[in-house]
Amino acid sequence: MNALDRIVASLSKLPGVGKKSATRMAYYVLDADPSWARSLAEQLSGLHEAIRRCSTCGSYTESDPCPVCADPQRERSTICVVERPQDVRVIEESREYRGLFHVLGGVIAPLEGIGPDNLSIGPLLERVRRGGVRELILAMNPTVEGDTTALYLQRLLKDSGVELTRLASGLPVGGDLEYADRLTLSRSFRGRIRL
Amino acid sequence: MNALDRIVASLSKLPGVGKKSATRMAYYVLDADPSWARSLAEQLSGLHEAIRRCSTCGSYTESDPCPVCADPQRERSTICVVERPQDVRVIEESREYRGLFHVLGGVIAPLEGIGPDNLSIGPLLERVRRGGVRELILAMNPTVEGDTTALYLQRLLKDSGVELTRLASGLPVGGDLEYADRLTLSRSFRGRIRL
Repeated sequence: MNALDRIVASLSKLPGVGKKSATRMAYYVLDADPSWARSLAEQLSGLHEAIRRCSTCGSYTESDPCPVCADPQRERSTICVVERPQDVRVIEESREYRGLFHVLGGVIAPLEGIGPDNLSIGPLLERVRRGGVRELILAMNPTVEGDTTALYLQRLLKDSGVELTRLASGLPVGGDLEYADRLTLSRSFRGRIRL
Repeated sequence: MNALDRIVASLSKLPGVGKKSATRMAYYVLDADPSWARSLAEQLSGLHEAIRRCSTCGSYTESDPCPVCADPQRERSTICVVERPQDVRVIEESREYRGLFHVLGGVIAPLEGIGPDNLSIGPLLERVRRGGVRELILAMNPTVEGDTTALYLQRLLKDSGVELTRLASGLPVGGDLEYADRLTLSRSFRGRIRL
């Protein structure tokens, strides 16, 4: 295997990248300035050293605690519980939320061998026990596994006095009834709002 | 800008990669084994040293002349003229062609300031002048620029005694008349074949 085939094989491992787009990328790199390729290479090899997990919320950060956990302006009484660190980024970019986060590191998925013990649930309970938390927003994806995990946390925390909420699920903004699947439509009916 | 934002910005420069997929890739790298990221980084930074242009045909290669130009089994009387080195790869993978190649390095595109002098046309004429070439297959893309370049080469070589051909253009195999654009349909009529 030559250098080009090797890099195509490596790039194909990236999410959403097939052999064809990996080949296009490899040729793009070849056609581009070698210094750009070197700078991307440095960023890649240094990424794991530059980025760690926040010891409080578990999201990716360059400093520990992360900027969100360290920010005195954030509402400390609300914790948004998400599956993965990238969900924190998506929510931060929406500028819709001013509270703190907690990254579970996944969802309960018995078929994949992931149980509650594989998730960051203990540290979440510990944060609740330390007090000051009024609401946990369970922002796991609206999937079977996300719902199961929400139900599990609900049972675990039912006597904690903390309010548990779940993100609304329904038709996407700009979407079309015609293209909505049955389950989404059913949820949008059950969650309908009085005007 | 932190390390994550920087690598997202770099990855977004790759073809077909927007900010969203660059972000997915960056998180994939973070979640993956650091040694995998380092190996990809090494492949990236070493790519330009490992791969050069073949001094005969202009395609990317690790050895000069490239494996195709060096292969005594290839038909030396036919040269397939393509726009870019990646076109050589696509044609090689189809296993449809047994002759040699010539990479122009682009097409005549006056709007982008690319004229005949910016392309590897001189070396092509030189290869023709050295003799032994019976056919040039003009395999530039069926675009206005590709056709213009084919026409230009046709005029340049009309007295050379070399047969010039152009790849057939028409409906893609497995395609549907309903979805064909007008120009493709028109070409498929003009190029229709007697059964």
